[in-house]
Amino acid sequence: MHDFDPGYGREPYASLVRRHPGDETYPSGDFRTEWGPVFHRGRLDGTAKVLVIGQDPAAHEAIARRILVGTAGRRIQGFLAKLGVTAGYTMVNTYLYSVYGQHGGNAHAHDQAIADYRNAWLDAVMADNDIHVVVALGSLADTAYQAWKSTSPHGTSYTGAYRHIIHPTYPDSAAASGTDRAQAMAKMLADWNAALDALAGAVPNPDTPTPLVRYGSDLTPADLAVIPEADLPPGLPAWMRSDEPWASRQGATPAEKRATILVRIPEDERPA
Amino acid sequence: MHDFDPGYGREPYASLVRRHPGDETYPSGDFRTEWGPVFHRGRLDGTAKVLVIGQDPAAHEAIARRILVGTAGRRIQGFLAKLGVTAGYTMVNTYLYSVYGQHGGNAHAHDQAIADYRNAWLDAVMADNDIHVVVALGSLADTAYQAWKSTSPHGTSYTGAYRHIIHPTYPDSAAASGTDRAQAMAKMLADWNAALDALAGAVPNPDTPTPLVRYGSDLTPADLAVIPEADLPPGLPAWMRSDEPWASRQGATPAEKRATILVRIPEDERPA
Repeated sequence: MHDFDPGYGREPYASLVRRHPGDETYPSGDFRTEWGPVFHRGRLDGTAKVLVIGQDPAAHEAIARRILVGTAGRRIQGFLAKLGVTAGYTMVNTYLYSVYGQHGGNAHAHDQAIADYRNAWLDAVMADNDIHVVVALGSLADTAYQAWKSTSPHGTSYTGAYRHIIHPTYPDSAAASGTDRAQAMAKMLADWNAALDALAGAVPNPDTPTPLVRYGSDLTPADLAVIPEADLPPGLPAWMRSDEPWASRQGATPAEKRATILVRIPEDERPA
Repeated sequence: MHDFDPGYGREPYASLVRRHPGDETYPSGDFRTEWGPVFHRGRLDGTAKVLVIGQDPAAHEAIARRILVGTAGRRIQGFLAKLGVTAGYTMVNTYLYSVYGQHGGNAHAHDQAIADYRNAWLDAVMADNDIHVVVALGSLADTAYQAWKSTSPHGTSYTGAYRHIIHPTYPDSAAASGTDRAQAMAKMLADWNAALDALAGAVPNPDTPTPLVRYGSDLTPADLAVIPEADLPPGLPAWMRSDEPWASRQGATPAEKRATILVRIPEDERPA
């Protein structure tokens, strides 16, 4: 039997999806609106206890049509598993579309129209679920949380736990801009350990109760978790949830690279 | 507002999707099982009057996760529009997975396990809708229909119209194997005209009543129809429903080509 995410047939999600904003709200100079919005990952059936706020979808997410399925997704899946949360979560991003360019993300952190639609999603998830923990990945997600917390009906009344943690791909982006990758990883994992200590016990009746195992100074395979089949649309192959990258932007010019995603099945996931 | 296909949340479709067969039924030597099953396109809400049986999903369908969205899909969409059918249809393929190699399709035309699952879908569509017309695209789909008609509960009791038409990409495959493309196209369109004559009037209360306009000897832009937004999963960009190809298999070796799909947004669909 194959589990799958039934998607957005239920209200209020069906209406939210129907009225998603386009490039009148997300300027195409700063967002890859041409790849379409990617809305969420996880439960939309009222059973979520943890809400994760991510940043923006990337290449893997443009194909799988769920957020946080690439490297960042597998790392945060492992973080949730350490708290015993293996099913009862919903993830929503700060941005519905992939950020394009270095400054797009920060430039629109306070756009009201973007916040309005995002807050409608956060309110919907809060109204539909008994959320005890909110985790924001990175500073843009923290900004999104604070805006919601201070202005939105379900934000101002939310009394559960909140933790802002370093974004799961910080070690990779830090390394790309010259910082020592091992040091960046150790810094992130120390931050995540502090978050685990703060949040352990905050989730009532965890899906898979487990003794808390903190991170070391580097990620091990045991620190990652595979994304459940129930999180992706029906029919998506298992390698789309695996630990190996399978989608990449390609192209000889910036315009071609922006317009092209190469989907390549990892070699050890192909039929024998 | 953006329409979307809510997918497989309703029964009996949810259970059908959950128990879809894998490579124990579809041998991976003859089917690209590694890209996952693609189930359908169109209405699953009881409003279909026409059932289309296609052949197998190709590269575009592997990404959009709905069948008949590439060239064949836009041609059959135009055929249905000529009958006034612009929303009330459901499409199911002969094969859940993409056929690999020249003989895979014919070799498994009579496999019982493949037929059993396909018949369960055809029965589900028949039970859930008031179907008046069935159209089979190509001879494999005709074989699938005949097997269902002669053995399945809803097949043996079906009394509506049935028409087997030449597969919509016959002109292209004929040209690739040396036949004159214009002749092959004219042959297909004459066959489709005969089908239009036979089926005109068979659909009660068409969605968009229209005088019957037959095909000429070649397809014109007016003979194609754009796939409706309501047929694709939420968030998929409009160019995935456009008339230009956007997905292709790539790779220097057969194994690489089988494992790789390049998704490239058509140039005139990119942000200015």
